[in-house]
Amino acid sequence: MAKVIGSVVATQKDASLVGRKLMIVQPINADGKAMRSEEVAADMVGAGIGERVLLARGAGARHATVNNVPNDVNDCSIVGIIDSVDV
Amino acid sequence: MAKVIGSVVATQKDASLVGRKLMIVQPINADGKAMRSEEVAADMVGAGIGERVLLARGAGARHATVNNVPNDVNDCSIVGIIDSVDV
Amino acid sequence: MAKVIGSVVATQKDASLVGRKLMIVQPINADGKAMRSEEVAADMVGAGIGERVLLARGAGARHATVNNVPNDVNDCSIVGIIDSVDV
Amino acid sequence: MAKVIGSVVATQKDASLVGRKLMIVQPINADGKAMRSEEVAADMVGAGIGERVLLARGAGARHATVNNVPNDVNDCSIVGIIDSVDV
Amino acid sequence: MAKVIGSVVATQKDASLVGRKLMIVQPINADGKAMRSEEVAADMVGAGIGERVLLARGAGARHATVNNVPNDVNDCSIVGIIDSVDV
Repeated sequence: MAKVIGSVVATQKDASLVGRKLMIVQPINADGKAMRSEEVAADMVGAGIGERVLLARGAGARHATVNNVPNDVNDCSIVGIIDSVDV
Repeated sequence: MAKVIGSVVATQKDASLVGRKLMIVQPINADGKAMRSEEVAADMVGAGIGERVLLARGAGARHATVNNVPNDVNDCSIVGIIDSVDV
Repeated sequence: MAKVIGSVVATQKDASLVGRKLMIVQPINADGKAMRSEEVAADMVGAGIGERVLLARGAGARHATVNNVPNDVNDCSIVGIIDSVDV
Repeated sequence: MAKVIGSVVATQKDASLVGRKLMIVQPINADGKAMRSEEVAADMVGAGIGERVLLARGAGARHATVNNVPNDVNDCSIVGIIDSVDV
Repeated sequence: MAKVIGSVVATQKDASLVGRKLMIVQPINADGKAMRSEEVAADMVGAGIGERVLLARGAGARHATVNNVPNDVNDCSIVGIIDSVDV
């Protein structure tokens, strides 16, 4: 679980990243506490700043629906927007 | 080893996650002490809140029996319920 | 490098884990100091409690000799027993 | 997200690394704060010292455009140069 | 980047590890400071104690030139010897 906290612009990048919305996400616990360090994730679900999201890493990140590019370098995707957390 | 501590609801998500039960798990040591940070895991074995479980990450997570969807983005699954720990 | 410190019993689990001996391992440094957090690993070499062992994670864990099951969810295996460490 | 802080020279290395520009990168948060530990990354986009960059790890690192060598051992690539960060 | 600090002997091990030189490596920053915890890595380049080396993890580790064994469990290889670091 992570929170979207910003975005990055990168003009010079691998061809597989062109057109991707690259967001900065902060991994969090259920209580919202920031854990570990921020990461850059390709947004596959239209997540907005401040939303809590589901991340997929590694090969899973490249399986996201809109992700069908050859030689994809992406290794972290936002794959869901969290509506509610029950703990 | 992890403990199931809650669940999340996400309406907007990758197609491969539809119908999955997404639980919040807290990695723990054998003595129950929380380690590292919470994660969201797809439950493949019917685990309940409070139970200690086995996790599989990465490609292993996608190999879980009920997990046969194309382009699966899932990268963390609950694959077993721990009955007892002997240390 | 890790030390075997216990075992777990899990009746309800993914089919690929049936018959596996699941041990609790504590990653250690060469001086025996515990590092990071405990993990559950499938024992492929007959390791005993207290022994120092070699771990393989991810796809490597599924390549272990006795590991030939389809859709294997295992992502951490004990693949060697350490006789001696020279530092 | 990481910052390029240096480079390494390695004459004796795996054949797949010959001709690669190997940079030292420090993972950072959006505010520039160093997180975790430095890593060595193969530069695929002509990044310079001091620039903030995007990293790809694991198989993603080997998918970078100029990366088409057999049996590539590379597991961390610089795949983009960050122009700006908005948080 | 890591420093070779020792070696391990393991008689009982997976067939894919037979004949491998297994070294203990300590991840370091450019200034030589130890980071995270020690790891066991298969040496593919003839690295000696005290040398700074490049590591490859996961599938990359199994792509190292001399690494062509079936069902290789190895997930960490020394793939280069660092001559100099420029920061």
